[in-house]
Amino acid sequence: MNLLLSPDTTIGFLGAGQLARMSATAAYQLGIRTAAYSGTYVDSMEPSSNDNKPLQPLELMTPFRYPGTFEDEDRLIRFARTCDVVTLENEFMDGELLGRAERASGTTFYPSPATFRQLESKLLEKDTFRRAGIPVTPYQQVSDIRDLETFAGDHGYPFVLKSSKGGYDGYGNVTVSSPEEHVAAFRSLGGDQGHELIAEAFIPFQKELAVQVARNRTGTVVYPCCETIQENHICQTVIAPAPIAKNLTEEACNLAVAATEAIDGIGLFAFEFFLTDDEKILLNESAPRPHNSGHYTIEGCVTSQFENHIRTILGLNPGSSQMRRPYAVMENLLGRHNRPARVEGAEELWSTSDAHLHIYGKQSSRVGRKMGHITVLGDRLEDVRREAARLADAVVI
Amino acid sequence: MNLLLSPDTTIGFLGAGQLARMSATAAYQLGIRTAAYSGTYVDSMEPSSNDNKPLQPLELMTPFRYPGTFEDEDRLIRFARTCDVVTLENEFMDGELLGRAERASGTTFYPSPATFRQLESKLLEKDTFRRAGIPVTPYQQVSDIRDLETFAGDHGYPFVLKSSKGGYDGYGNVTVSSPEEHVAAFRSLGGDQGHELIAEAFIPFQKELAVQVARNRTGTVVYPCCETIQENHICQTVIAPAPIAKNLTEEACNLAVAATEAIDGIGLFAFEFFLTDDEKILLNESAPRPHNSGHYTIEGCVTSQFENHIRTILGLNPGSSQMRRPYAVMENLLGRHNRPARVEGAEELWSTSDAHLHIYGKQSSRVGRKMGHITVLGDRLEDVRREAARLADAVVI
Repeated sequence: MNLLLSPDTTIGFLGAGQLARMSATAAYQLGIRTAAYSGTYVDSMEPSSNDNKPLQPLELMTPFRYPGTFEDEDRLIRFARTCDVVTLENEFMDGELLGRAERASGTTFYPSPATFRQLESKLLEKDTFRRAGIPVTPYQQVSDIRDLETFAGDHGYPFVLKSSKGGYDGYGNVTVSSPEEHVAAFRSLGGDQGHELIAEAFIPFQKELAVQVARNRTGTVVYPCCETIQENHICQTVIAPAPIAKNLTEEACNLAVAATEAIDGIGLFAFEFFLTDDEKILLNESAPRPHNSGHYTIEGCVTSQFENHIRTILGLNPGSSQMRRPYAVMENLLGRHNRPARVEGAEELWSTSDAHLHIYGKQSSRVGRKMGHITVLGDRLEDVRREAARLADAVVI
Repeated sequence: MNLLLSPDTTIGFLGAGQLARMSATAAYQLGIRTAAYSGTYVDSMEPSSNDNKPLQPLELMTPFRYPGTFEDEDRLIRFARTCDVVTLENEFMDGELLGRAERASGTTFYPSPATFRQLESKLLEKDTFRRAGIPVTPYQQVSDIRDLETFAGDHGYPFVLKSSKGGYDGYGNVTVSSPEEHVAAFRSLGGDQGHELIAEAFIPFQKELAVQVARNRTGTVVYPCCETIQENHICQTVIAPAPIAKNLTEEACNLAVAATEAIDGIGLFAFEFFLTDDEKILLNESAPRPHNSGHYTIEGCVTSQFENHIRTILGLNPGSSQMRRPYAVMENLLGRHNRPARVEGAEELWSTSDAHLHIYGKQSSRVGRKMGHITVLGDRLEDVRREAARLADAVVI
């Protein structure tokens, strides 16, 4: 597919959060339209009028918005028919339904439903990549308490019990440290109600890494390997490139490309790795879409992950991932209050060279919610890190 | 004024063309809203619904659009009341009306109506800058045929007769080469119907230059002096920085800052200069808004002219205008056909590193209409120029 670029070309987004918003900005540069499928159901297929419902980040920047749930197949098909290509910004949907919607609408979905289905649950994802020869953390499906005992016997404590589907930012994960915790952990994630769970070995790691890959039939572009620093299971800081040995960054980039090819990924994909204490690189998680670990690419690279997402799903060559300056550090801006969103304390940021503020337009701030991010570029890593930390700390949302 | 950044903060644009569109992209990065006042009048103050009227470039990327004309004071006031700050992207409006709308709405307009009025006609503009000590081309108001004779007597032939208000891209200009052409030139621009005209001496120049300035109460940032190359009175190519002696670029930048201060400009301002055959720099034209000569700043500079437009009208410090790479060349993409817009021939561009395509989303292409632009960055000017010319030539819209 190589879509014609015209003012009628429309990219449909399933979901209207910050990832859709930043992707839409790249689409707008190409003179095309975006449409948002999101929010709550109302009984009209017309784009919603200017009512007083809070609009989501992408809904605030497109006239073409269609309320609907990811479960409403009929509605999703009708939405897809208004678009030239449909993409997504989260994984909270059903791969089979996406496949049916693609066939019924006649509109191409990227990532393809076939790709999506291979990543649809943590179990499928790990099976897929293990079969492709990508090193992953040891894991096992957990259907009952005995599976926990088996896993603990094989891999020891602590280990992590995870919801196979629907978890994010640490939600849906429980660390299990002793046999006494088995029952409570299993129940807390709904194992006793039939929710699919997996156990993952706890791997002592030095660092967490991430790599984004843009790929379609015209070519593949891999971004620099970056380091991600999590606090309370939420990404706080991204350092690009990761300050590790060159052979390790190369290995991570190679694994990311191999993983993208293993799922025949078309679009933008992100892969998170552990760099273990014994210098091994293990795939931890993947996302079939632009990812928080790649926000630094907006200013940091010649072509952002968002532009390459749009380019690859349109059938255009992905652009260069070369960095603009030696280092980029991104800091997430998490909500500090539960209140209507407003930005305070950015004064220093405005007068700092090569520091860039991104706010997502979310109506409400909640403690820990991703409200925006800053990216600082520079020549010396320690300076850039210090500056980014100082500026991010001052911003209160 | 230092506006609060919140998801309700709204920047209102008078006009919804490509300059508003590119400015809006910068506003969206800050999580705020844009509203478009444009197009034809309809009898509703509600944002227009998704009818089948062709939407203009900004209208395609905002849910908040208000049809209305620049003459409809009442309507413009009601629009301004829905915004936190109002800005503009062209000069086809009346400064007195803007002033009344600002007072009646209680919403700040930037550029301020007082600034706007000083540039409102070519006559006022030249008077303003001449009084401020900025060198301008010799000019004279032309009220009747005898004024043409006087001007020709003082400055010789050829000279240029111009509509004092409303001209752009060469429209509203006539070159006068002999006394026999006086009457026809005067009539062709409506002089006999009372239209205000000015005569300008024809200055032999080596190059045309341009400088953008971002300014508000917190500070002033001046962009590099660039060279603009016109074909048929329309900007075709911009080279940044201009390949001229350093003392000349400094002089142009100093004059641009002085000119901005002379009109107490708040927002983004662009100034076009002649570099004369005898190495003098004369102010030719100015614009109280982002300008075609500054499109290269999107990728070429740390902070684009559009982001600095948004930042300065919000009361935030303007950001660094430092260039990302030694050279940037921008080529306008003018319509090659009269037809519904579509982009062809961009294949080479997609696979060229640090070449960037911008398409404005205009529904119809017309021969010579500004439909988009490309910017190429690089280290050697001759390579960048050749590459930009080659890529732009291949793109057909």
